[in-house]
Amino acid sequence: MASRKDLANAIRALSMDAVEKAKSGHPGAPMGMADMAEVLWNDFMKHNPANPGWADRDRFVLSNGHGSMLIYSLLHLSGYDLSIDDIRNFRQLHSKTPGHPEYGVTPGVETTTGPLGQGIATAVGMAMAERMLAEAFNRDGFTVVDHHTYVFLGDGCMMEGLSHEACSLAGTLGLGKLVALYDDNGISIDGRIDSWFGDDTPARFRAYGWHVVAGVDGHDAEAVRKAIEEARAETGRPSLICCKTKIGMGAPNMADSSKVHGAPLGADEIAATRANIGWNHPPFEIPADVYAGWDARPRGAAAQQVWDDMFAAYAAAHPALAAEFTRRMAGDLPEGWKELCEKALAQIVAAAENLATRKACNKSLEAIGPALPEMVGGSADLTGSVGTKWSGSRLLDSANWGGNYISYGVREFAMGAIMNGLTLHGGFLPYAGTFLIFSDYAKNAFRLSALMGIRTVWVLTHDSIGVGEDGPTHQPVEQLAGLRLIPGAHVWRPCDTVETQVAWQSAVEYKNGPTALSFTRQGVPFMQRDDAAVRNIARGGYVLRDCEGTPEVILIATGSEVGVAAGACDRLTAEGRRVRLVSMPCSNIFDRQDAAYRESVLPAAVEARVAVEAAASDFWWKYVGLKGRVVGMTTFGESAPGKVLFEHFGFTADNVAAVAKEVL
Amino acid sequence: MASRKDLANAIRALSMDAVEKAKSGHPGAPMGMADMAEVLWNDFMKHNPANPGWADRDRFVLSNGHGSMLIYSLLHLSGYDLSIDDIRNFRQLHSKTPGHPEYGVTPGVETTTGPLGQGIATAVGMAMAERMLAEAFNRDGFTVVDHHTYVFLGDGCMMEGLSHEACSLAGTLGLGKLVALYDDNGISIDGRIDSWFGDDTPARFRAYGWHVVAGVDGHDAEAVRKAIEEARAETGRPSLICCKTKIGMGAPNMADSSKVHGAPLGADEIAATRANIGWNHPPFEIPADVYAGWDARPRGAAAQQVWDDMFAAYAAAHPALAAEFTRRMAGDLPEGWKELCEKALAQIVAAAENLATRKACNKSLEAIGPALPEMVGGSADLTGSVGTKWSGSRLLDSANWGGNYISYGVREFAMGAIMNGLTLHGGFLPYAGTFLIFSDYAKNAFRLSALMGIRTVWVLTHDSIGVGEDGPTHQPVEQLAGLRLIPGAHVWRPCDTVETQVAWQSAVEYKNGPTALSFTRQGVPFMQRDDAAVRNIARGGYVLRDCEGTPEVILIATGSEVGVAAGACDRLTAEGRRVRLVSMPCSNIFDRQDAAYRESVLPAAVEARVAVEAAASDFWWKYVGLKGRVVGMTTFGESAPGKVLFEHFGFTADNVAAVAKEVL
Repeated sequence: MASRKDLANAIRALSMDAVEKAKSGHPGAPMGMADMAEVLWNDFMKHNPANPGWADRDRFVLSNGHGSMLIYSLLHLSGYDLSIDDIRNFRQLHSKTPGHPEYGVTPGVETTTGPLGQGIATAVGMAMAERMLAEAFNRDGFTVVDHHTYVFLGDGCMMEGLSHEACSLAGTLGLGKLVALYDDNGISIDGRIDSWFGDDTPARFRAYGWHVVAGVDGHDAEAVRKAIEEARAETGRPSLICCKTKIGMGAPNMADSSKVHGAPLGADEIAATRANIGWNHPPFEIPADVYAGWDARPRGAAAQQVWDDMFAAYAAAHPALAAEFTRRMAGDLPEGWKELCEKALAQIVAAAENLATRKACNKSLEAIGPALPEMVGGSADLTGSVGTKWSGSRLLDSANWGGNYISYGVREFAMGAIMNGLTLHGGFLPYAGTFLIFSDYAKNAFRLSALMGIRTVWVLTHDSIGVGEDGPTHQPVEQLAGLRLIPGAHVWRPCDTVETQVAWQSAVEYKNGPTALSFTRQGVPFMQRDDAAVRNIARGGYVLRDCEGTPEVILIATGSEVGVAAGACDRLTAEGRRVRLVSMPCSNIFDRQDAAYRESVLPAAVEARVAVEAAASDFWWKYVGLKGRVVGMTTFGESAPGKVLFEHFGFTADNVAAVAKEVL
Repeated sequence: MASRKDLANAIRALSMDAVEKAKSGHPGAPMGMADMAEVLWNDFMKHNPANPGWADRDRFVLSNGHGSMLIYSLLHLSGYDLSIDDIRNFRQLHSKTPGHPEYGVTPGVETTTGPLGQGIATAVGMAMAERMLAEAFNRDGFTVVDHHTYVFLGDGCMMEGLSHEACSLAGTLGLGKLVALYDDNGISIDGRIDSWFGDDTPARFRAYGWHVVAGVDGHDAEAVRKAIEEARAETGRPSLICCKTKIGMGAPNMADSSKVHGAPLGADEIAATRANIGWNHPPFEIPADVYAGWDARPRGAAAQQVWDDMFAAYAAAHPALAAEFTRRMAGDLPEGWKELCEKALAQIVAAAENLATRKACNKSLEAIGPALPEMVGGSADLTGSVGTKWSGSRLLDSANWGGNYISYGVREFAMGAIMNGLTLHGGFLPYAGTFLIFSDYAKNAFRLSALMGIRTVWVLTHDSIGVGEDGPTHQPVEQLAGLRLIPGAHVWRPCDTVETQVAWQSAVEYKNGPTALSFTRQGVPFMQRDDAAVRNIARGGYVLRDCEGTPEVILIATGSEVGVAAGACDRLTAEGRRVRLVSMPCSNIFDRQDAAYRESVLPAAVEARVAVEAAASDFWWKYVGLKGRVVGMTTFGESAPGKVLFEHFGFTADNVAAVAKEVL
């Protein structure tokens, strides 16, 4: 029978050999964490390699994602659908083993990691999801939701500010089933960390309200086992286990130095490591007894069987709850969703209200919220301003896990990563708000949401110089374009209550990426439109007003500038010009429409075009071409009342009409 | 004589009245911090209102910048060039009192704040600058650099991850002259913070190695004074003074609640506050004794006179040092700079090396570094990868303040904010590196650098799918466009050693904003070009290769894709096509060239254009128009060797040539 050391050494061998073969990668971290991982996975992890989607599995997150060969080794060895050939193909095009772990590419990878700090923050979201779902669905005798979230993280994650945001919140919430193992090896890429990282990490985490098991030898399996047991015994606080390790453990000449961090060890050191750790097997060959020691399939199948039996009994006792649990974990929309949306939209069209779109957003939440118990809202401490709280919102805190509204605190980045974790866990549709400008702070979490192709909804208000007096620090300019350029993201900037409702419907229905909803602080007018126009909103861009015959000029606008462009349209029409007004609330969706539709909205023959948006001009040349014009922002904003700024920067009907005449 | 309470109440009155008049703003914070501020400014601050640029003044940073009326009140009352009419004009267009404090707009405002966390992090940079300058310039008997950096910060800053990054580093470095006062009022916008922020903040900061004075009553002037004295007495560690305060202190019905945070108090509550605090003066009227109590001009002038006298003696004893100090504080380039650059450029042109531009960057640092002792480099723990360390680099740490290279740790955002602080303090030209993708983490600090119009240099390597195996988490797509769209920013993406050298020269010479230098991980070919082309690089875009007569098609490329486009150019030329190749290393600068130059590079008559950049396509429509094409990225990258990815995504000479034929 293989010893614990043999089992851990299998990770070391696979890691150094795969990195060597790929000629790139990070061997040091997996070699250093091998013993910790062996104990966690073989003694504690509840999972079923045959079914990576089992709802009640423990979640494992490798926050220091550059150590990807650790998780690939674990998944391969424990019996997931990840073959030794997949391991051989490490870092090759379209392999199941990319350079950093990617959700959706490798069975068993729960989230994409690599951008440091995001793993631990996403794991906080997963642990919150577990706790909320348990509160909603567990019943006497039926703990259908009862699992742990385990995280490995390194010095890099500890230095990133995001770890502060997420762990501070986790401590305040008392997430007892979150267990983080800190790979404390004292080495980062620049070398021994003492000169730039002197934190007393256990004290730091105790200050957050965490339970800390300090001073664990990360290469002593028994010590790690005891620490994890202690962590699991603590149910009122998240636990941090500080494991002292050596990076590249096993490499006789390079361990404990930054040389093993991010490059292959080389043939000589690999041979020396084999000798040093007593691993006498060729690359990518694992002895049968080692495979046997790792195989998690039998106990995984048994564990799931127990749960399946319980869930069957639960379904018999609580059929509606069981059906709802199944629906929510599948991410399906409730029955009657389409009808509800049609009805809500019709009401909003009929009401014809002039409203700031942030307020329109709140109305939409009131319309759709009651049908979607999976929605969990929140804000980075701007609840009143962004309007993310609706009448069905109940504050979630450590004393109330039945809540559906998270005051994230002033922690935009953690908010984004936690939303990712809520979605990845399953059972939730998270939405949360901040000012559009502060999407800057959270941008890479939005990007990861897009890269993973998962649904999160970002409510980003105060979306232009229309913010007014708060001034240029709070007025977005380049943010809209920056978010639109993220592949797979949907950025909506509705112009009124009707487009806002369609945007919300789109965000809820878009399961393959994040949606950013950009809303105004200031009031905007309701736009009259016919039924065809209402239907075409969902296509991202459409003709809002038109002329007889071929237009002489096309105005394209979004959000608060649609009303301005409509005024220009009126002026020009009154002067006998043939003008079309195109509203383009979501260019990402418009760009994916068929060529015929796009041509019907923006005919190639009409080159006289003016785009109007109180945001970075350059984005719009795509739609207006070399002969067009953009009324946009080329500078930062200013501090003054919003109306004054609209005048000052030329977002007036008069100016837009004047610019249009230049291209006519 | 006015009492301390009277003095503090002047802040309260000005703040509530200015917010009321502007009909927007944040009265609660300045009213809550008034007592702390009164003690700090009247008992400790070394400053000269008549000369806000005095080199050895104490720096004061209001990290919770929404409380801007605090600093405007302080500057007005203590005698800066900020009149009562300026206060009346709070938040009006082009006033000296914008909604949030803005560097360059108001004399005495040391940095732009509002985006939370950045004030404290920028202050860390200022305190580092003080310590480094002292090390470089102080001599026996001449402490020409000897001042404190004081910061006010609130709960919001404490929650932001950035505060962790910056304060962790400040603790490790032992910045003894940094004194932070925490406005611990227990209220944030969402309400009482207990449900979302439960940190033991003193314990957290002790874990960073800070000296903490806990439990101070922020409304007890004597307690605050003692705490500041204690903080100043501690010279080996930064100090945090935790002041318990009431937000909106003085407002009888609204204090200590989120109602006073971000909206005017209203006429009734203002009247009640006047009665409550015993302030019987009309709005914007300050009694003479209160002005007299605040007036810092006499003692400021005296303090500066002492320093001026010392500096005169220093200049006599150490003329070269004094001249160098003066030059560096003025931000002037050294004599002979132009000649040095010309010589370096000529050598690089002659060497004609094929090099990854990150390596070319390192060569440029070797060329210019010796002439610029003000350069202080660093990296967010990627020193070896980004090549920011050159032979003259010496690691700075708590034991070596003579160093000129900062290992920032994995703290991109703090790195950016600290660079801002180094520049704002004066005496330094900071540059620092990370991967381009992680500019996402630091984006708002880069933006603030642009908004303030100050010089920082960002070395952003691994700038496309050319990164290769690390995969899409590490491959930028939308980042280049996102940075280019920031007003006032310069984004350079050089194609070879020569463009790299010109980019560095531009970055050093550009004093009114940040420069991002985007460099490849992979090798790129040297481009042969004539002298005119070499000279035109500095114009941001230029004709690198041309044909006889009017081109049939123009190829536009940047960075690593210039070589690819050159290959396409060769193929098309061999087929008898008239092709022009435009290299566009800095579109921001090209856009500012006169129309004639731009037309000479991109003639309007030639509409057959193809842009080639391994980044988000949409940016390039501006230059190619509706009839052009872009060979760019519309998806995320993949994990595979870089060359495989260039093939896979169509960045090959063959594909570019084929696309060019489509538009011919």
